[in-house]
Amino acid sequence: MANPSSSVPATPVLKDELDIVIPTIRNLDFLEQWRPFFQPYHLIIIQDGDPTKTINVPEGFDYELYNRNDINRILGPKASCISFKDSACRCFGYMVSKKKYIYTIDDDCFVAKDPSGKEINALQQHIKNLLSPSSPYFFNTLYDPYREGTDFVRGYPFSLRGGAPTAVSHGLWLNIPDYDAPTQLVKPLERNTRYVDAVLTIPKGTLFPMCGMNLAFNRELIGPAMYFGLMGDGQPIGRYDDMWAGWCTKVICDHLGLGVKTGLPYIWHSKASNPFVNLRKEYKGIFWQEELIPFFQSVSLPKDCTSVQQCYIEISKQVKAKLGKVDDYFNKLADAMVTWIEAWDELNPSSSATVHNGAAK
Amino acid sequence: MANPSSSVPATPVLKDELDIVIPTIRNLDFLEQWRPFFQPYHLIIIQDGDPTKTINVPEGFDYELYNRNDINRILGPKASCISFKDSACRCFGYMVSKKKYIYTIDDDCFVAKDPSGKEINALQQHIKNLLSPSSPYFFNTLYDPYREGTDFVRGYPFSLRGGAPTAVSHGLWLNIPDYDAPTQLVKPLERNTRYVDAVLTIPKGTLFPMCGMNLAFNRELIGPAMYFGLMGDGQPIGRYDDMWAGWCTKVICDHLGLGVKTGLPYIWHSKASNPFVNLRKEYKGIFWQEELIPFFQSVSLPKDCTSVQQCYIEISKQVKAKLGKVDDYFNKLADAMVTWIEAWDELNPSSSATVHNGAAK
Repeated sequence: MANPSSSVPATPVLKDELDIVIPTIRNLDFLEQWRPFFQPYHLIIIQDGDPTKTINVPEGFDYELYNRNDINRILGPKASCISFKDSACRCFGYMVSKKKYIYTIDDDCFVAKDPSGKEINALQQHIKNLLSPSSPYFFNTLYDPYREGTDFVRGYPFSLRGGAPTAVSHGLWLNIPDYDAPTQLVKPLERNTRYVDAVLTIPKGTLFPMCGMNLAFNRELIGPAMYFGLMGDGQPIGRYDDMWAGWCTKVICDHLGLGVKTGLPYIWHSKASNPFVNLRKEYKGIFWQEELIPFFQSVSLPKDCTSVQQCYIEISKQVKAKLGKVDDYFNKLADAMVTWIEAWDELNPSSSATVHNGAAK
Repeated sequence: MANPSSSVPATPVLKDELDIVIPTIRNLDFLEQWRPFFQPYHLIIIQDGDPTKTINVPEGFDYELYNRNDINRILGPKASCISFKDSACRCFGYMVSKKKYIYTIDDDCFVAKDPSGKEINALQQHIKNLLSPSSPYFFNTLYDPYREGTDFVRGYPFSLRGGAPTAVSHGLWLNIPDYDAPTQLVKPLERNTRYVDAVLTIPKGTLFPMCGMNLAFNRELIGPAMYFGLMGDGQPIGRYDDMWAGWCTKVICDHLGLGVKTGLPYIWHSKASNPFVNLRKEYKGIFWQEELIPFFQSVSLPKDCTSVQQCYIEISKQVKAKLGKVDDYFNKLADAMVTWIEAWDELNPSSSATVHNGAAK
C-alpha cells in the first residue's frame, strides 16, 4: 500500500491557509525566538485584560490585534460568551479567522530542541499531523502509520488503513509539564526532559486532557467545537478552558469520523505558573471533573447531527439537562455554548451549512 | 499524589516468579547474547516440528524442554488444541508453567541498543511495565504516568489515578518491523530505526495487533486467555496466532478491569521471514480479519463472567455462533478454545476457581 503521506510535500507551508492565535496580557517578545518559523504567517493576537494597555509586537510580523473593546464591538451582547481575564479569550481568534487551519500557542512557550540539538519547527510538525490521516478505529503499535519510515503492522485490518481526516494536532511540552495545582505542589521540581519521538491517534471512544498551550486544528472540520468556555473574571473556575474544549471536540470528532493526534511537536514551556493561584482557579473543577468525565463518556449524539454546530448544540442541551444539577454554572455555560455557536455562524455565514460527508456513527 | 511506581524496587528480579517461554525448531544460540539478562531465569522451551531432532541449549541455562511427543503424552486427546509446525505451539509453555509471570520471545530476536548505545535489558523493562498499574480509562498525554519523572497531566480525573492492574506488556522491535506479507512485499527495505522512549496503556475499548515476538504477561491475571489458536500443520491459516490471542485477551482485560501496555522494551529483530511463504499463510486471514475485528469490537461479556476462564468460554460460544458462518474453521477453533480451557484447568487445578476482585464492567 502506498503511504498516503508520501504525496504530501516535505515542507507544506499553508502560508495563506493558517492563522496563529495568541492570547496575551504582556509584550510579545517571545515571538523573536519564533521569527524564522512564524514570520510568514498571519497572527491573530487577543489582548486579555485592560484594553488601554499597549501590547508591543516585534517588528516585521503581520498581525491583527483584538482587545476587549473590539470583542464587545464586534459581538455586541454575544460577547458575553468570551471569557475576560483568562486565556480562554483566545477562542475569539478562532471565530474571527477566515483561514482553514489554526495554530494556537501561549506566550511563555519557546522553541524546543530535539535530541540532536536541532531547533524544532513546531508549526511544521503540526501541519504534517493535520495533513495526514488519523487511525482512530484500531491501535497501531508502531505509532503514526502515515509517518515516513513506518506503516501499519501485521494484523491491522486493511479496510481501516485509509484512516480518518485529522481534525486536531495536540503538541507537547519540554521543561515545565502541564500539571494541575496539586501535582505542581507535590512535585515542584519535576521537569519533562524526555523527548518521545512519536505521534499517535487517540482512539475513538477515548477522552484525553487537551492542553491549549501548543495546539493546532482544522477550523473547517472542527472549529465551532473549539469553544474555551466561561473562565476567569466573574466565573467560579479557571484552567479548565482547554479541557472543556477538548472533551467536546473529542466526542464530536468520534461522532463525525474525524481524528485527533497527540505527541510531536514539543515546545519549550519556560515557566511554571503559581500553584497557589492555580489551586484557587482549579478548586471546583477538581470536584466537577469527576462528574464531567462520566458525562462526556456517555454523551450520545443522534445520527441526524451531521455538522459540528448541530453536535455542539446537542451537547449544550445535555449539559443543561445532566450537569445543571451539579452546579448552576453549567446552566450558564450551556447558554454560553449556544451563544458561541450563534456568534460563530454570524461571523462565518457560510460555515453553518457545512455538513460532513463522512457517515455519522 | 505519591507515584505508585516509587514503591517498586529499581530492579525487580522476580527470579522465582517468571518463566521465559521460547518456541523453536533450531539451536538456541541466540541465548548467548541474552545470557546476562536471562540466565537467572527458568526457560520453558517448546520444540516445534520433528521431535527426534536435538535442540542444543547453550551451557548454563536452567530449562525444561517439551517436544510434540511430550505434549501428546501430557495432554492426551486434548493435545489437539496445541498447534504443530507453527510457533503457536508456544502457548503450551504458558499452560505448564507454574509461575506468576511469563515472558515469551522468538529465537530470531536479539538484544537491542538504546540511543545511548546501551544494551537494553528487555525483560527488566517488561517487569517494570507489569508491576506498575495501567491507565485504560482516560488517555494521559505524557504517556505512562507511573514512570519515574512523569505523572498525570492537568485534567486527568483524580479518581482514575489509581489505575488498573497491568496484565500484559507488549514490547516492540527495532530493525525488521512486524509487517504482514503485503507490506513486506511492497516495502522490502523498510527497517524500524526509531526508538520511541515511551510506554502507554491501550485504552479500554480499543483493539490492537498483539505480536508474540516480545511479549510478557501476568499468568495469574490473564493466562487462560493467551491461547494462540490453531495454526500451521493441517490448518488453513498461520501468522494470526498472536493476533487471535491479543483480541481475546484485550476484550477480557477490558471486561475484568485489567490493563494492557505497549511500547518499551525494544528487541532487535534480526531477519525478515519470507514474504511469499507468509502470504500463503496469511491469505485467508487477510479476508477473515475484516470480519474478526467487528466481531471482537462487538463482543459483550455478561456480568457474571468473573474469571478469565468463564470469559473465554463465553467468547468461544460467540465465535461459534457468529464466525462459524464465515468459515467452518471457526467452529473447529471454538471447540479448540474449550479444549484449551479444559487442559489449562487440568494442569492448573487451583486456577479455575480464581475469580477477579475487580468489578466486571
